[in-house]
Amino acid sequence: MQTRTTYVISDRTGLTAEALCHSLLSQFPNVQFDIENLPFIDTIEKAQDVVKSLNKLAEKTNEKPLVFATLVNDEVRKIIRDGNAVFFDLFDTFIDPLEKELNLESSHSVGRSHGVHDLAQYSARMSAVNFAMTTDDGMETDHYARADVVVIGASRAGKTPTCLYLSLQFGVFAANYPLTAPDLESTELPKALAPHKDKLFGLTIDPYRLQQIRKERFAGDSYASPDACQFEVAQAEAMYRANNVPYVNTTKKSVEEIGAYILHKASLRRKI
Amino acid sequence: MQTRTTYVISDRTGLTAEALCHSLLSQFPNVQFDIENLPFIDTIEKAQDVVKSLNKLAEKTNEKPLVFATLVNDEVRKIIRDGNAVFFDLFDTFIDPLEKELNLESSHSVGRSHGVHDLAQYSARMSAVNFAMTTDDGMETDHYARADVVVIGASRAGKTPTCLYLSLQFGVFAANYPLTAPDLESTELPKALAPHKDKLFGLTIDPYRLQQIRKERFAGDSYASPDACQFEVAQAEAMYRANNVPYVNTTKKSVEEIGAYILHKASLRRKI
Repeated sequence: MQTRTTYVISDRTGLTAEALCHSLLSQFPNVQFDIENLPFIDTIEKAQDVVKSLNKLAEKTNEKPLVFATLVNDEVRKIIRDGNAVFFDLFDTFIDPLEKELNLESSHSVGRSHGVHDLAQYSARMSAVNFAMTTDDGMETDHYARADVVVIGASRAGKTPTCLYLSLQFGVFAANYPLTAPDLESTELPKALAPHKDKLFGLTIDPYRLQQIRKERFAGDSYASPDACQFEVAQAEAMYRANNVPYVNTTKKSVEEIGAYILHKASLRRKI
Repeated sequence: MQTRTTYVISDRTGLTAEALCHSLLSQFPNVQFDIENLPFIDTIEKAQDVVKSLNKLAEKTNEKPLVFATLVNDEVRKIIRDGNAVFFDLFDTFIDPLEKELNLESSHSVGRSHGVHDLAQYSARMSAVNFAMTTDDGMETDHYARADVVVIGASRAGKTPTCLYLSLQFGVFAANYPLTAPDLESTELPKALAPHKDKLFGLTIDPYRLQQIRKERFAGDSYASPDACQFEVAQAEAMYRANNVPYVNTTKKSVEEIGAYILHKASLRRKI
């Protein structure tokens, strides 16, 4: 298998460059990419050090490393670009055509895409995070009037990380409620949920996967048995269908995908 | 001020395209961008609907909207590309030169960059999230032996969202401990923290900003007074310096930036 060393170089966090890099490289499943993130490369000295490493590696392996960069500072970018590497410039590639289209020069200031915009935005995010923490795992169901969404599902289907992600990423007020075995004896909604039917969003999961997850922490417990997992998943889905609760299968989805899907399907308004 | 309608179109979550779009557009502070996210555009029918909207808007405003797209499916991309818009293709722009460089064809399968890779990764993430929840706000300090980092700071400096972000994004075990007024009477580390000195990372914040944040929820409380905020921030910083605890000022940073900074400065190993 071909191996390629890949650097993600940014003058800020590098999170954007990293995400796009992963997305692009996932299109080459037969190459083993060794990805190193180099964030906060914001001075000429740091850039020079990076180039030294690049050049050394290229010489040693006789192959140019790949570089994905978002560098706003022209001097820093020029230094990196002169290194012995294959350079993909996520910033420069698009900023030129954008300048032409908008008929404006760009500010060339270091990106504030992840920056704090104002106190209102900050507070919205914090309130959402606090709400998710307070209403995790069926706690404080009397706060559901303030919820944008109440995520429900069997234990270990992914409710807690989904709600934390919704709150952090989008400022959405997301509570979560575990459907326990007694809840699942009928398809009727639990009492705490019934008044908030329109806010419910169900998670489901492949029973075998659920069993694997539960086994990791509770091996030997009946809760982690194949029967329990199959029963709970089937009953939860029956409850969703009986009450027209939209739901999503989390088995092959990451927390980001589940969160984005719920936001989209439930037409939730982002607050940040 | 120039206004431009901007669409972010993706066949998956659109999170990557959205992040790069925001990063690029932040370089044009004098343009008002109305950004709409259109995720999960994964069928020809959906693509045709999008193009209809684009074309209608272009005709109505007499100006082409901007489109940032990550579309892997060739047919879907072709439909969108034929719409009356200025098209920035985050995927296609880089996939061609990558194919040439790697001397391979890309798989052209819909990106799994945010996908669940395997159970081990999933479990690592869940464990980290559980750890952050369990050890939030000074709870369960006896778990600090398992922590990768213990984030400390005055109340409302941003500890909780930072730790949740570190756990979700990087799978890092991040606990947090609030430095309360009694802790801040001296520069000595609180008892629970002293044995874990090497894992500590401090947050500080502009006292005026801290006061604004506290006032939002606790107006009138002495805790939200200018004096209390100034005292707590000054004492916390003195404690960090006296004990060589690295720290970061969160005032102008987003949770993403704080998290990426701590990961970098504390040389934490990501687990996902």
